[in-house]
Amino acid sequence: MEEINPSISPQPEKKPAHPHSPAEKERIQNRLRRVEGQIRGLQQMVEDDRYCVDILVQITAVQSALKKVGYSLLEHHAKTCVVHDVKNGKEDESIEELLKVIQQYAK
Amino acid sequence: MEEINPSISPQPEKKPAHPHSPAEKERIQNRLRRVEGQIRGLQQMVEDDRYCVDILVQITAVQSALKKVGYSLLEHHAKTCVVHDVKNGKEDESIEELLKVIQQYAK
Amino acid sequence: MEEINPSISPQPEKKPAHPHSPAEKERIQNRLRRVEGQIRGLQQMVEDDRYCVDILVQITAVQSALKKVGYSLLEHHAKTCVVHDVKNGKEDESIEELLKVIQQYAK
Amino acid sequence: MEEINPSISPQPEKKPAHPHSPAEKERIQNRLRRVEGQIRGLQQMVEDDRYCVDILVQITAVQSALKKVGYSLLEHHAKTCVVHDVKNGKEDESIEELLKVIQQYAK
Repeated sequence: MEEINPSISPQPEKKPAHPHSPAEKERIQNRLRRVEGQIRGLQQMVEDDRYCVDILVQITAVQSALKKVGYSLLEHHAKTCVVHDVKNGKEDESIEELLKVIQQYAK
Repeated sequence: MEEINPSISPQPEKKPAHPHSPAEKERIQNRLRRVEGQIRGLQQMVEDDRYCVDILVQITAVQSALKKVGYSLLEHHAKTCVVHDVKNGKEDESIEELLKVIQQYAK
Repeated sequence: MEEINPSISPQPEKKPAHPHSPAEKERIQNRLRRVEGQIRGLQQMVEDDRYCVDILVQITAVQSALKKVGYSLLEHHAKTCVVHDVKNGKEDESIEELLKVIQQYAK
Repeated sequence: MEEINPSISPQPEKKPAHPHSPAEKERIQNRLRRVEGQIRGLQQMVEDDRYCVDILVQITAVQSALKKVGYSLLEHHAKTCVVHDVKNGKEDESIEELLKVIQQYAK
């Protein structure tokens, strides 16, 4: 899977200070599975030559579902990794990284 | 597949004035299949407890890919259905609908 | 006043197909005067070293007020100039221009 | 000046942990004065019945200038007040507030 957005390069070796609990993980995975289903639904709508506006509206629904997943991850990150880094003297790097992510989201 | 966004209710019976050509359809389906793959990639990143920022960046990549799909559909709709409706005296309804879609996108 | 956004270059000589009525104009000017007042309010908040979050929240209020002004202009443009152009065989140029504006707004 | 966005209620008595330096303040005020000038420019364009697309493009320029002001305030807030609060055991409230502001910006 090609990871895009070079402005914040991936850090595959870096682990979260506090990984999600199994329950949190399951909630996120359920949302992502639903989004995956919605994407397949979009493919079907395109295949069936559905009216463009219906497809467009469905895309905005998927975007808002994805935004919620992103927001819950951002919340988890801010409340765990960022707090952990600030308390351990690594605030500069951690806050800089958080601001870059916020800029991506507020685009 | 649950279709959300009641503000513009789906019109399953309505057909586009000019359906996408097979080539256009294939281009859109390729993009949607890539997005589907990216969503599965996100699920794997969550499963592997990847660093939150890496997952967040990947979500913004999926969002921008989806936005491009949406934009190409909007372009097709404006250039075909909307023009067709305006030339056939149905401008009020068609422009109103287009404006609603734009509002959803500019949220 | 330096006009930015070179991707759609200004057309000072071009006039709208249907200028706003005096009443519509007054409504838009009232909104813009209110936004101007809000900007001066922001300057005062910065001068008074108000808490950053209060200033940030006020900026989002100004942005949403501006978005509403933009949306009402877009609505007027779509319902008048675009319809006029399409009915007079100038759909390609007009729809292309509308799509560029939509892209700016959906950024 | 009517302060909107009740979801984060204003805290007029609260002072920033680290107020902006005079130089930073002057930079922000310059930007806000320029935005104020651009808003007056928009009023003139509406008065002169300028072509709608020109006005719309100018509004997106103002929005992006405002976004930059907001972003620099957010950066200052995160690097000073939020770090100060986390280091002084007030992370919960401070991070919660930061997340609310981010949500407003990412709308």
